[in-house]
Order: sequence, then C-alpha cells, then structure tokens
Amino acid sequence: MNGTPLPVRALPRPYLVFVGDEQHRSVAKTGAGVCYWAPEACTGQWRLSPAAIDLGLADMGPEEAAAAGAKALLIGVAPVGGLLPGHWIASLTEALRSGLDIVSGLHTRLNAIAELATLAASLGRKLHDVRHSDTSFPVATGRKRRGKRVLTVGTDCAIGKKYAALALTNALKARGLAADFRATGQTGIMISGSGVAIDAVVADFVAGAAECLSPDAADDHWDVIEGQGSLFHPAYAGVTVGLIHGSQPDALILCHQPDLQTIKSFPDYPIVPVEAAIARYLDIARLTNAATRFVGVSLDTSGIDEDRARELCADMTQRTGLPATDPLRFGMDPIMDRMLQCA
Amino acid sequence: MNGTPLPVRALPRPYLVFVGDEQHRSVAKTGAGVCYWAPEACTGQWRLSPAAIDLGLADMGPEEAAAAGAKALLIGVAPVGGLLPGHWIASLTEALRSGLDIVSGLHTRLNAIAELATLAASLGRKLHDVRHSDTSFPVATGRKRRGKRVLTVGTDCAIGKKYAALALTNALKARGLAADFRATGQTGIMISGSGVAIDAVVADFVAGAAECLSPDAADDHWDVIEGQGSLFHPAYAGVTVGLIHGSQPDALILCHQPDLQTIKSFPDYPIVPVEAAIARYLDIARLTNAATRFVGVSLDTSGIDEDRARELCADMTQRTGLPATDPLRFGMDPIMDRMLQCA
Repeated sequence: MNGTPLPVRALPRPYLVFVGDEQHRSVAKTGAGVCYWAPEACTGQWRLSPAAIDLGLADMGPEEAAAAGAKALLIGVAPVGGLLPGHWIASLTEALRSGLDIVSGLHTRLNAIAELATLAASLGRKLHDVRHSDTSFPVATGRKRRGKRVLTVGTDCAIGKKYAALALTNALKARGLAADFRATGQTGIMISGSGVAIDAVVADFVAGAAECLSPDAADDHWDVIEGQGSLFHPAYAGVTVGLIHGSQPDALILCHQPDLQTIKSFPDYPIVPVEAAIARYLDIARLTNAATRFVGVSLDTSGIDEDRARELCADMTQRTGLPATDPLRFGMDPIMDRMLQCA
Repeated sequence: MNGTPLPVRALPRPYLVFVGDEQHRSVAKTGAGVCYWAPEACTGQWRLSPAAIDLGLADMGPEEAAAAGAKALLIGVAPVGGLLPGHWIASLTEALRSGLDIVSGLHTRLNAIAELATLAASLGRKLHDVRHSDTSFPVATGRKRRGKRVLTVGTDCAIGKKYAALALTNALKARGLAADFRATGQTGIMISGSGVAIDAVVADFVAGAAECLSPDAADDHWDVIEGQGSLFHPAYAGVTVGLIHGSQPDALILCHQPDLQTIKSFPDYPIVPVEAAIARYLDIARLTNAATRFVGVSLDTSGIDEDRARELCADMTQRTGLPATDPLRFGMDPIMDRMLQCA
C-alpha cells in the first residue's frame, strides 16, 4: 500500500437521481434512502414518466442537472432481479453525453455493457458499479488503531443497521462531535459518497478491508461503521465476523426487529434472543478489542404502533440493561449518551 | 445452477511435478505434499539442475512425461513472495508444447502472463491458477444435506488441518468406508484433484461455496472437509465461519500445536486454551447443525520428541475427554473410531 491511496471507493457527487418509470416506492428504496440521508448530495430527480414515483426532488433531465452542478446520475431504482431494463440504455447514454458519471448498485455491471463502457471511455466518464469490488485489499494486521469506533450488528440482516449508524452519525455531529459514517454496503456508499462494499471483497481480505475503511484517527473521533449480515445468518455470518474483527469496535449496537420470528428467507433459522446475541457478539468482537461493549439496542418498530413501540423499548432496556430506541422514531440520543459515557 | 455442473474446480492428472532448480526442501512443500498424499497422481519430477531437491520421483522432462500419461505440469515450488521466476517461462512453454496443462498455486496468475496465455490458447491447453477463483457460487441455502461431514478446525492457521483431514480420509478408506477428502486450499486441491480455494471466494458466497463442495451424498458416506483459517485469527476468522456454516459438519476435529504460544505472525494474539476453542467452535457450528460435536484433537508434535508427544496426547485426552493423536506419527484411528461411534 506504499504511498497509494487506501482502496476505499469514493463517488462523484452531487447526484441526479434516476427513477426511470418506476411506480412502486419499494423498488426505489435506494433513491429514497439517498434523498432522506443525503439531501445535500441530490441535485434533482429524473423521471421518465409523470406516473413515476416522486422522491420530492426537483424534476430535471441530465443536461439541466449537469448545468446545476450534478456530477453523476445515480440509479435510484432496484429492479427485480437486479438486472438493467434494456430501455434504460438510452437514458444512461444521454446522461454520459451530458457530462455525468453513472453510479449503480445493480447486479448487472454497467462496465460489462459494451455500449456504455465504450461511450464512457470515449467521453472520459466513469461507470461506478458500487456492488462490485475491483480493488485489492491487504490482509488484516490486527494492529490497534487510534480513534474510537462503533459498529452496528444485528440479530438478522436488513433490520436497520445502516439507519442506526446514519442516525448516530447525525446525532454526534449535531452535538458538535467529530464523527464519520463508514459505509459497508452499496446504499450506504451512495449516501456517504465513499466506503467499501464489504460483502464483495474476496474472503481472505474482509478484515483487512474493514481496517482500511476506518483508519487511524484523532483520539476523540468516532467512526460509525455500518454493520453487514448477522452472526446468526447461515449464509452471511462470515462477512459479519470479518467486519467485526477488522473494525475493532470500542462500542457495539445491537439492531433487532421485535416482531420477527425467523431469519428472513430462512424459515428454519429462528431469531435468537437478544441476550444470547449480545453474548455471542462480545465473544467474537473481543478477539481484536478486549474492551468492547454494547451501548444500546436499536429496534426496528416500523409496522408497530407508537405506544407499543415505546413499551418494547422499555422492555428491551429491562432485559439488557441497555438504552433501547427506534432511531427513526425516537432518535439515537439515549444510545449516543451511553456510548459517550462509556468512552 | 440448473443443470450446470457445480462450480468446484477439477484438475487434470496425473502430474509431472516441476521442481525447477530449487535446493531448499521447505520451498518445495507443495510438490512434497502432493507426492506424499497422492503418489498415484505423480508421473515423475522435472528438475532443471542436478542440485535441485529430489522428491523421490522418476526424473523426466515434459515430453517423456506426456508419453507416460501425464496430463499436467504441477508447479511444486512456492518461491518467496509467490511470484514466478522469469527463467521458468521457457520450461512452462516447453511443457505446454509437449501437451501438458499447467497447474499453479502461485500468487502470479499464469493466465495473466500474455506469452503463456496466448500459447496455451493456441494449443488448446489450460493454465489452472488454483489460488484464484473465477467461478460464481450461489448464496448458501442453510438446507440440511444428506450424508455425513467432518471438518477440521484449529487454534491457529497452518497447524495440520489439511494433513489431519487427508489422514482421516485414508483411514476411512482403509477400513472400507465411503469417504471423500474435500479440499479448500490450493495444495489440498492439487492433492485431491478437485476442490474450492475457499479463501479466494467473494465473501458473500463462502458458505454457499462450502455447500457446493460437499453436496448431498449417501447416508453412510463421509465428506472429510479440509478446514481453513481459525476462529481465533484476526485476519481469517470470517473465512473459517463461512466454511463451518456451509459445511454443516456432523463432527469436528480440533487441530492444535502444543508448543505454539501466539498466532503465527500475530504476536499480540495468544493461542486460546483448547477447552475455550472447543466451546467457541461449537457455538458457531451449531447454527447450521445443532447435533455437531467434537470427536478428537489432532496435535502437530513435529519438533517434539516421541515420548513427550505421547504424553501431550494423553494430557489432551484428560483435559478434553476426546481422543488425541498426531496423525503423521500415531495415525488417525482413535479419532476415526470415536467419530464412527458418535455417528
């Protein structure tokens, strides 16, 4: 790594968010997430039809967006199967010709589509396939780094690890503290503009990539690291372990969805009790940071009414002795306070 | 995966083992391992100088080897740094022209050396870069498979997991039982002729690759799976966890080196006591196979005199209640007997 920059991806921003002709909000989660968490990074939205969903940004085409300062078209829609609909090619071509790079989290690599790759190269534009990793990472050193780190972990995948980390980063910044969100998944990378898609890294280098992602920092600086997978997921636990070991977190936050019975898409795998999850995560995390501890439980209570959600938080605090909150409903202050108290 | 073969690598055999002009036995570990464990797969050795080390095979060049039935030249030497010495190119070219494929575990991809890649393509020969993985694996399903599986795990990397698995496979076959060695590292793949270099797989698919490696089998069939890494290694534990979860082992064997104090090359990381290692491995492995159990401890006692080695085995049995042996010194029968008894 002598003298070369760390192999962490950095994206050109702000974005023109491409919605296409998508009419279902659930399919535009990427675009909606970027708008919600990084409004300052969104110049506008490009809808191909008036029936397409509205993310609340100004409508504009790529030429207008480029003139307004946009640096890239962000594909904000995740079509079923992750493949690129053929009729989008003309739109992406237009964006390249207007001077925008393209940022994509699709399974289909834009760089593998000859028409786009050739045009981008001829125009000096870049196609950022955020889901894929073409960089090499070093093997982890296990060496303790300066600065503070907090990592979100979960009883399953997709239960608010990214949102908890983003909300905590904002809360720290709002209090005037030094903090950086460290993205480990494609949407997180789009939101923050940099990061490592950790599950796309070759297995031997996952912990090493996590070390690169949160380098030495000032003693009072917090890296808030987006968790991936779950220690209790039969397909992804290895990714989670590598990320934990490389992150060397001083603090852990457990993310949990109270009404979930089994691992999503794996009905034979029950969600473990939070007490057991906390104990197992500590077992693993203490290998590279013996002083690590949990500082809170972040609940995803969407779909549960607010009174019941408050009860669930109180109940969780009683069970674990940790502050519990739904970051999107009740904010992250209780967990942040505990974290700063412990540090 | 519909109808397509599983993406497990298969190598052409038997081999002509290439020793080059290497004079240090420790550098020819790959070639020596293949000769020791798969003598039937070795047609001969090719030494470029009389001073080169002798693996005990018949000396021959590639043309003679091809005439004797060899299908590939196996690079049996691992030069420092993993790079290909430039003066070998002429030898590899000669092998390709003689009708042999080339099998390499070097960091340098033979397929990235234009001269070799072009010649191989024009001759219809293949360059097998065993250390690298170009195939795609599915995400793990977590579905229980038929047949029995045993996996070797360790208190560190490189303390006999491959040798224990190979010795156990041979012991099972000697007793007339159905068993296959399932290789997960490059030397293991060269020895057995097939397998998956699990640490070269993209992190998200490690458990899925492990599922592919040991597919459904007859109820009384044993897959003996070569372990990788260690749960206590700050760089590689994630690989180990993915391999455990995908393997769904019915039986585990702990590999341990009694005179080792810290993780190799990581002096800040002490070797954990075997009792703690056993407990932690069971915690992890029970996620995908609740009935898993340890059936033995395999000790690497090289460098310890034989009387002391016997004492260490007896001591280990006392501490763990498990049969303990050094597979290369005392055989694997005690562990095999316990494993068959438990099954």
